Amino acid sequence: MRVFEGGSGSITMPLGFLAAGVRAGIKEQGEDLALIFSDRPASAAGVFTRNVVKAAPVLVDAKRLPRTTARAVVVNSGNANSCTGDAGLQDALRMGREVANRLGVAEEDVLVASTGIIGERLPMEKITDGIERAASSLRRDGGADAARAIMTTDTRPKEAGVELSLGGANVKVGAIAKGAGMICPNLATMLTFITTDAAVAPGQLQGCLAQSVEKSFNCLTVDGDSSTNDSVIILANGAAGSRLIDSRIPDLDGFQEALDFVAASLAKQIAQDGEGATKLIQITVQGARSFEEARQVAKTVANSPLVKTAMFGRDPNWGRVLAAAGRAGVDFDPTAVDLSFGPVPLVRGGEPLDFSVAQAQEVLSKPETNVLIKIGQGPGSATVWTCDFSYDYVRINAEYHT
Amino acid sequence: MRVFEGGSGSITMPLGFLAAGVRAGIKEQGEDLALIFSDRPASAAGVFTRNVVKAAPVLVDAKRLPRTTARAVVVNSGNANSCTGDAGLQDALRMGREVANRLGVAEEDVLVASTGIIGERLPMEKITDGIERAASSLRRDGGADAARAIMTTDTRPKEAGVELSLGGANVKVGAIAKGAGMICPNLATMLTFITTDAAVAPGQLQGCLAQSVEKSFNCLTVDGDSSTNDSVIILANGAAGSRLIDSRIPDLDGFQEALDFVAASLAKQIAQDGEGATKLIQITVQGARSFEEARQVAKTVANSPLVKTAMFGRDPNWGRVLAAAGRAGVDFDPTAVDLSFGPVPLVRGGEPLDFSVAQAQEVLSKPETNVLIKIGQGPGSATVWTCDFSYDYVRINAEYHT
Repeated sequence: MRVFEGGSGSITMPLGFLAAGVRAGIKEQGEDLALIFSDRPASAAGVFTRNVVKAAPVLVDAKRLPRTTARAVVVNSGNANSCTGDAGLQDALRMGREVANRLGVAEEDVLVASTGIIGERLPMEKITDGIERAASSLRRDGGADAARAIMTTDTRPKEAGVELSLGGANVKVGAIAKGAGMICPNLATMLTFITTDAAVAPGQLQGCLAQSVEKSFNCLTVDGDSSTNDSVIILANGAAGSRLIDSRIPDLDGFQEALDFVAASLAKQIAQDGEGATKLIQITVQGARSFEEARQVAKTVANSPLVKTAMFGRDPNWGRVLAAAGRAGVDFDPTAVDLSFGPVPLVRGGEPLDFSVAQAQEVLSKPETNVLIKIGQGPGSATVWTCDFSYDYVRINAEYHT
Repeated sequence: MRVFEGGSGSITMPLGFLAAGVRAGIKEQGEDLALIFSDRPASAAGVFTRNVVKAAPVLVDAKRLPRTTARAVVVNSGNANSCTGDAGLQDALRMGREVANRLGVAEEDVLVASTGIIGERLPMEKITDGIERAASSLRRDGGADAARAIMTTDTRPKEAGVELSLGGANVKVGAIAKGAGMICPNLATMLTFITTDAAVAPGQLQGCLAQSVEKSFNCLTVDGDSSTNDSVIILANGAAGSRLIDSRIPDLDGFQEALDFVAASLAKQIAQDGEGATKLIQITVQGARSFEEARQVAKTVANSPLVKTAMFGRDPNWGRVLAAAGRAGVDFDPTAVDLSFGPVPLVRGGEPLDFSVAQAQEVLSKPETNVLIKIGQGPGSATVWTCDFSYDYVRINAEYHT
């Protein structure tokens, strides 16, 4: 298995996929409309926000997935088409229909995503023009353009890819994402699009995707807020000529591993690029009774503003970490907790060790900090990614005005 | 019913209570040891942190309450006696024993509380000296000194009181609190002490206190972190000569109302004094299926860093409020949501209204902002208090070094 992180053009690395990213004029500047196209019908699956407030494109896609005949995904940045009522739903449907007409595919085989300002109608004329231009500029090497066109407040595009031998063929998985920092205008979104030339039936694809999401995007938190638009969509078009990936080991394991890799890589890239972030924080909880309990403790620590500001201030503040872990709603014995920051143990058996503050501060000065919390002897462990909380987070989020 | 907010000396307003606040030298400066004494045995009850990591004094008090014969509460600031293992537990017990010896009461009739740095042993010599001085300076008008001595990062003491006619007598309820802003050193705590000269049996007192806490301190959030030391303790000594307050209406209702008032007043004062806070935010959710669901939605909005930074930036960002409400884990119809900031309606039926941004910004410029969210037609409503998130919050919490 060869893996690529932060590469360029990942999404068109698998055979049979073309992409484009163009400027439609929705954002103030830059490309803001992406199109991903499969030259043959693809299995498709999706996982969407659990927020009860769901944007129009999410409502459209959730009805269309999983399916066997998907052909394209169209994405705009700059406007989320959220809280726009029935008119917004019609806009989302029309956005898909315009793509279908341009590409000569069925309307329902097109998936739609949006990210950006909420509560405003999509500028449909610009969208339509953009779709026309994107359709005519689809290219085998258009993946990097698409990765850029879905960005909002991201400071860099996010890509990951895997190449592996699977089901008797050389198979590729490519993925792009845009970030979860919540920001101007109003609210941002986590969007991820994955392509593969493996052959996978939709039900299987949905199961594999859900499993990857559980250990990647659902282990990611920038500020605890989840958006009305969050979507992860995968297309598998079988163009590599592999046999069908079904429940047979080791095919399924190999595919799951590849999917897990791109999803986790993108989740980490998103945390790293969180608004105002100066460092990536990786929090691992071990010894819980289950993965779910481990993740709940890790997420509570990751969402604690006190922990995040301490990390920004390079303060080895173990007390804040323990206190956050303790209020996660998971029962554990506080006198059996061990805690370390990178290689520096800070707490053993619930009591502070006599650690070197200078050494701990050095750990916290690096661009990536690992926090390890052992809460018992159970089999459950989980890793969660987040970033620190800086002055810039407040500036970015307070200074934007609706 | 006469009510006092932010008064002075509330805790010694009820008959039969004396108090003192002295400097023991635990903090860098100022009074840091408080003593509250009842001249006769008092019913006592307490509500404590649900954090699984509990400080030593919490473990001690939780065993002693409720009881019929409480006589004193001793509180130090500057050191939380938390994550200090068995040695810390012995220190907490000794702190109570020193008070008992000085005052000639039974050891188990003394309650203990601590707030401040965690993971360090109490300076027992200073504590013992402080207790000696506090015991000899107990006064009928010592309430204000006690209110000051329990402060850590609070910028002002927090007091509230009620005088009412109850059970055939003129009864008083007095209360002091220290704030919930989480800060240097490590972690702060919400401590509240309530005195009353009404006669109430411990079981009844526990029930009334739990009910008041549910709608006050459990509706308060500064940054979502709850401490290892949070405690609310009440003493009722019957010195007013009222008949026993039991389940009889209207006595019980009157007492509950008084308790609700002081608890809610202190919760608001704490939110107002949150670290770096520039404004108090009162979030009311109506139309939920239950109080619990309403509170859950309100708390999720109150804890959203995006909402709190928008409030700091005076940004009428209704989208962040809706998105936070939507991820609270409570099911509601997003197309039936109404939202207003003070008198300005922003959203009706889930879609934005054409509101005046200038008018909304004016609402957000005041020291107190009311956010009203209607999520349906149910009978459940709840109000939660919080504060905004400013640069100062990050500064205070990032610049402190362990």
